[in-house]
Amino acid sequence: MQTGVPLNETCNLQVWKLEISDKSKGFVELLQQLTVCDAISDEDFQKRFQELSSLGDDHVICVIEDTSRGKIVTTGSVFIEKKFIRNCRKVSHIEDVVVGCDSRGMQLGKKVLSFLTDHARFVGCYKVILDCSNENKAFYEKCGYKRKEIQMVKYFI
Amino acid sequence: MQTGVPLNETCNLQVWKLEISDKSKGFVELLQQLTVCDAISDEDFQKRFQELSSLGDDHVICVIEDTSRGKIVTTGSVFIEKKFIRNCRKVSHIEDVVVGCDSRGMQLGKKVLSFLTDHARFVGCYKVILDCSNENKAFYEKCGYKRKEIQMVKYFI
Repeated sequence: MQTGVPLNETCNLQVWKLEISDKSKGFVELLQQLTVCDAISDEDFQKRFQELSSLGDDHVICVIEDTSRGKIVTTGSVFIEKKFIRNCRKVSHIEDVVVGCDSRGMQLGKKVLSFLTDHARFVGCYKVILDCSNENKAFYEKCGYKRKEIQMVKYFI
Repeated sequence: MQTGVPLNETCNLQVWKLEISDKSKGFVELLQQLTVCDAISDEDFQKRFQELSSLGDDHVICVIEDTSRGKIVTTGSVFIEKKFIRNCRKVSHIEDVVVGCDSRGMQLGKKVLSFLTDHARFVGCYKVILDCSNENKAFYEKCGYKRKEIQMVKYFI
């Protein structure tokens, strides 16, 4: 049974928290549109799912399922970092937002981002941050985000 | 008793993992040089310290103490995000790197960054990322980092 909160109950495109059964609905294939993501065994998927679930509200992955097709068409994640700064406040980090290429133009990215941002606010974060390409800047600006810093990266592989 | 790994045993500026006793050695005052960080009560500090300690290797704060003065002069943190992408790999996020204004020019930032980056590699991350200002880009480039994306932010307060 789904446990998320539907954004619009009259619509078949609602935001839910990821469930184990979403693996069989194309969740991994959706991630493959974002970056390298080979097939994951059921065992590995279950193990990672349980690791993340044990973090409760501190790590949430949400999905939008097109229930008419039984297919996951959008996802995004948010995790909470606990700080000492600002009187031990918290910061949310949004990651891995992807809208399936066959589901663009329906505001699904905005729905997922709204869900993740609301979660960050709900758990008491003072800000939420994310890294994106220059090409996606305009989308996040429409969602109320502003450009601030630059991202630096070091790869080990 | 300190539990970290000294980078250079002949030197009084070594990298250790944060300990509760570091609060009385100017750790919070050092964070105040980075951003807003009012005084933290011993109770709040201990609570946050224990929350973070319970995450083990998934969230590490390190410090450099100038033992000749009993003062924390540099800090930085790293936390591990567990992903589904790339066959359930992990990504490290480095945050809150600060070198005390009275301790610049001694490569302490580089020491801390090296400690945090090595931790990321040790726990099996495929990459490590951080956000910084344009002014600090050159420093991170010297440490082997490359610019990639842009950071977007939304504040709730």
